[in-house]
Amino acid sequence: MLSTEDNSLLTRVSKGTAMNNLFRRFWLPVLLAAELPTPDCPPVRVRVLDEELVAFRDTNGRVGLLDQRCPHRHANLFWGRNEDGGLRCVYHGWKFDVTGRCVDIPNAIEGESFKEKIHAFAAYPAVDNGGLIWAYLGPPELEPQLPHFDFAHVADNQRFVRKMLLPGNYLQIMEGDVDSSHVSFLHHAGVAPKGVMKIAGAASPYMVLNRQPHWEIENTDYGVRLAARRDAEPDTYYWRVNQWCMPSYAIIAAEAEALIHINIRVPVSDTETMYFRLWWHPERPLTELEVDELESGGVIMPDMIPGTFLTAENMRNDYLIDRSKQGSGASYTGIKSISAQDFAVQEDQGGPIMDRSLEHLVSSDAAIIAVRKRLLDATKALADGVEPPEAADGDLYRVRSLDTILPRDVPLAVGGRDLMTARV
Amino acid sequence: MLSTEDNSLLTRVSKGTAMNNLFRRFWLPVLLAAELPTPDCPPVRVRVLDEELVAFRDTNGRVGLLDQRCPHRHANLFWGRNEDGGLRCVYHGWKFDVTGRCVDIPNAIEGESFKEKIHAFAAYPAVDNGGLIWAYLGPPELEPQLPHFDFAHVADNQRFVRKMLLPGNYLQIMEGDVDSSHVSFLHHAGVAPKGVMKIAGAASPYMVLNRQPHWEIENTDYGVRLAARRDAEPDTYYWRVNQWCMPSYAIIAAEAEALIHINIRVPVSDTETMYFRLWWHPERPLTELEVDELESGGVIMPDMIPGTFLTAENMRNDYLIDRSKQGSGASYTGIKSISAQDFAVQEDQGGPIMDRSLEHLVSSDAAIIAVRKRLLDATKALADGVEPPEAADGDLYRVRSLDTILPRDVPLAVGGRDLMTARV
Amino acid sequence: MLSTEDNSLLTRVSKGTAMNNLFRRFWLPVLLAAELPTPDCPPVRVRVLDEELVAFRDTNGRVGLLDQRCPHRHANLFWGRNEDGGLRCVYHGWKFDVTGRCVDIPNAIEGESFKEKIHAFAAYPAVDNGGLIWAYLGPPELEPQLPHFDFAHVADNQRFVRKMLLPGNYLQIMEGDVDSSHVSFLHHAGVAPKGVMKIAGAASPYMVLNRQPHWEIENTDYGVRLAARRDAEPDTYYWRVNQWCMPSYAIIAAEAEALIHINIRVPVSDTETMYFRLWWHPERPLTELEVDELESGGVIMPDMIPGTFLTAENMRNDYLIDRSKQGSGASYTGIKSISAQDFAVQEDQGGPIMDRSLEHLVSSDAAIIAVRKRLLDATKALADGVEPPEAADGDLYRVRSLDTILPRDVPLAVGGRDLMTARV
Repeated sequence: MLSTEDNSLLTRVSKGTAMNNLFRRFWLPVLLAAELPTPDCPPVRVRVLDEELVAFRDTNGRVGLLDQRCPHRHANLFWGRNEDGGLRCVYHGWKFDVTGRCVDIPNAIEGESFKEKIHAFAAYPAVDNGGLIWAYLGPPELEPQLPHFDFAHVADNQRFVRKMLLPGNYLQIMEGDVDSSHVSFLHHAGVAPKGVMKIAGAASPYMVLNRQPHWEIENTDYGVRLAARRDAEPDTYYWRVNQWCMPSYAIIAAEAEALIHINIRVPVSDTETMYFRLWWHPERPLTELEVDELESGGVIMPDMIPGTFLTAENMRNDYLIDRSKQGSGASYTGIKSISAQDFAVQEDQGGPIMDRSLEHLVSSDAAIIAVRKRLLDATKALADGVEPPEAADGDLYRVRSLDTILPRDVPLAVGGRDLMTARV
Repeated sequence: MLSTEDNSLLTRVSKGTAMNNLFRRFWLPVLLAAELPTPDCPPVRVRVLDEELVAFRDTNGRVGLLDQRCPHRHANLFWGRNEDGGLRCVYHGWKFDVTGRCVDIPNAIEGESFKEKIHAFAAYPAVDNGGLIWAYLGPPELEPQLPHFDFAHVADNQRFVRKMLLPGNYLQIMEGDVDSSHVSFLHHAGVAPKGVMKIAGAASPYMVLNRQPHWEIENTDYGVRLAARRDAEPDTYYWRVNQWCMPSYAIIAAEAEALIHINIRVPVSDTETMYFRLWWHPERPLTELEVDELESGGVIMPDMIPGTFLTAENMRNDYLIDRSKQGSGASYTGIKSISAQDFAVQEDQGGPIMDRSLEHLVSSDAAIIAVRKRLLDATKALADGVEPPEAADGDLYRVRSLDTILPRDVPLAVGGRDLMTARV
Repeated sequence: MLSTEDNSLLTRVSKGTAMNNLFRRFWLPVLLAAELPTPDCPPVRVRVLDEELVAFRDTNGRVGLLDQRCPHRHANLFWGRNEDGGLRCVYHGWKFDVTGRCVDIPNAIEGESFKEKIHAFAAYPAVDNGGLIWAYLGPPELEPQLPHFDFAHVADNQRFVRKMLLPGNYLQIMEGDVDSSHVSFLHHAGVAPKGVMKIAGAASPYMVLNRQPHWEIENTDYGVRLAARRDAEPDTYYWRVNQWCMPSYAIIAAEAEALIHINIRVPVSDTETMYFRLWWHPERPLTELEVDELESGGVIMPDMIPGTFLTAENMRNDYLIDRSKQGSGASYTGIKSISAQDFAVQEDQGGPIMDRSLEHLVSSDAAIIAVRKRLLDATKALADGVEPPEAADGDLYRVRSLDTILPRDVPLAVGGRDLMTARV
């Protein structure tokens, strides 16, 4: 349970809010790299952290991310011509490079000199990294290192990337990442997928036998380590460790041979969230079965509305719930894909912004409580002028999730240390 | 004409308003019984009096009506599994019975004891009655009797039930029920239906001859009795009596052999209204002709958008007005069904909430004035702590509408007494 | 750049604002004449200057323009029966003539006398003129003369008329009319239309050679004369003159033999604008080629959504931008019609109401600055009680645009005087 004030602090992300400011201290994915596939390709709209931007990849392959308004008379640069090292407004031909500098004002006699005074309303650094385009929307003098994520350092065929635009506040969507106990209910199904979903660890007999694990939750220098310990054999423990990294990353545990995956939630507005979901294997290309299960809508990923990042199952169609499947036990919810199951309950927790002053938490919500506290502390600290230390060092993010068995007398920090360190 | 204050008092029904409170003193229909057809059938959403609820019929056939939010983390119980005597949230398995009691918390070690402290945010009594599910949303200690309506005490084949969700404030929609004079205009048609519509009395030659009846309007212990008296033969009067019952029922006059019908308006929000419309015969099953005229869209009832309670004719398509039919006199309005004719003018009386401070009423609006006053007085009384007496005694509602001829020297109260009393 | 206050004064047009009041001082087109084709034809909705009206043509061909609410209980007169010299509300039969007088109250005994006290909430003078229906929404005692426009005094086959309803504030849409420099960019195309578009003067070699003309901008008694002067031969100048007339007309220059055209923007609300666009020739019928180019969507005019005044290309489909055409240079924007190119950039200048306190104007925006100032001065003057003088004399509007060559030693005011005067 949160106070109304803390709930507001955590959930409100419009421009000028404390949480908006906090997110601006970090590099954030804002596009799939595939959305800007080639130099001089069409620009695309980017809405993030309550800003309306336009992104383009210039002739040299550099990515620009500008306020969508041309400074002249505010025509949308989205209509612009991406050519010869810059984005040109189609209304009167004003042109801007990736840094936001105005490089041409062809419709006025004084254009050559006047252009020196003109700059895009905003221009943010943006780079390709791991199949995503990342941007930094904070104060230039505080630009941090890119977080070093495992998935950004493997070959493209070792990685699967998806982006979705979800209705709902980022926090309630993100809380699902560290809400271990919902898996046994919401995602329980008569028939389980055979490939990728081993990553969810649902296949482990120890998990089936023990649905109420012992939690070891630890604040770390990158975020919160969420370790669930279950009895395995008489002398061993079964450990599952998810890594939640500031400000909104969750690396999910995977069995030794299975894919790791990471969920990244980026606030668009108070009630809209961009969701990047990546699956990768540090050592080998994805198998055909894995790609197939991830590609085909309706198993793990939802079906998408073609040409959009919107899910075909959504609130307007009650997430296509099939009550007969729910009744027969073929599916706990009657909702087809694992993702859509999450979205259905997350979109409407009493509305798009949950009122956490009325909730009733239990012991299995410990990880949620820890993550909220970490975010809240960082938000309040920043409001007091203390920059978030996680942003300073990208190497802090060299962590992995864990799914392993250790002798009972070996502490996790010792036995799991190497396994929880990224190697690529 | 109403003051702006009184217009607000009468029309505003959001939570906490005086009118919302008044409606909560009465049992109100909130669903068709057919929407919860069997034990353990899928739950359904219920929006009423500015609340978001979910209804379900449990294993024993009892109906539950709960706040839609699970008290844990507010996942919508609409997604829930209706099984083994309760509704189970699919997010983490918490389960509630029809009284709102939490009967299972399977995702936490402390669940067995903690569940005793947990209760649905709201749980309202709900019962089957006359093809409808009725709910009481008021203070438990004031729970009233169910109103005794005729239609609830006949066999199912003696009754026809419809539900619609209409845009517009409940009051302007309900005013149409006691607006006798509009029938000769709005519903005037070249060709009249042959069966059911006799109930509107339009077939009476006395009604055609005399379009400006003498009104006898009387406050009663259940609401307002609206009697229209017309000259019949030299020594007789033709009486038509509609019964308006607190807080929003209107029993419409029917000739001796025709169906009676009742209109029930239940506020959903300031600008949305649930409309239950029932037709019944106290002594016999409905005929095939009657059912056919009621079933087939476009005569009496509107066409519906399949799978919804929304009308196919609506403001977005100008209620499919056919100006050529209007011009030829085949239809006064050019709008097909009698219901859609009503909805077209009621939805937009200067907008979804009419400003009655600007209206210009005439003598034929006497019934409207009387009904408003009754509602307004009750609303103000309740605000002063005086409970509405009508709610206390369900038997007050044992009334019928009337359509008959009486000798001129016999007062209505005497000659009509038995006919205006429900016998089932 | 405008102050925030001036930007508000210029753009806000809801009822009661200074700009709404200013527009009410002038006759304004509100419908195509073709929307009310015959006596007693169906009434139509009119939304203009933040009012909801209904227009009808009575039995004698006179046009009525009334507040849409029946004064009785506010049923929408749009549903009304247009018959026998008036518009009759279908709810209770009340009837009004084109002056707003109530001529029948058939549903009440006292109707015959009561009707004398009843008047439509509003009734505005409305007349046919030049293929349009014009209305005057200001104080009756100040009713001005109709502006004398050329196009209203030619035969119907010498004129082409279109109406569109556009999202966006009227001002940013209208600014496009006096934004000469955008033509060389936004509307630049590989292949130009052969007929009508000569009116844009794009065919002139002097225009291609000199994209930064010398401006002569002059306040006149009807509005602002916007003259662009370019060098032609050593002893001549090429002059193009557009006429902007209070409060929102723009007569666009045409070469001697080509069609003249006029754009008229009428505010509907802060974010919706009616746009009337007329093309005409003062001396001859339009040719088949001209009509064809104007009729066929996608060249000059946009495609329309059938049965509406809405454009098929719109923001929801990114104005059907074709990036491959943009890339190949076949079209500067990749948007098909000239009109849709304008609408795309005008609809979203930082949103539906541009914030002009942040713009960066250049010399080529001189005409925009002049027009804003004229409107702003008139608005402030009216707020101080000074009526706009342009409204008083319709003959002030007897002006034409100009496209001609004059000796360098002949001033425009002399050499162009006759050519800039309307002759019909």
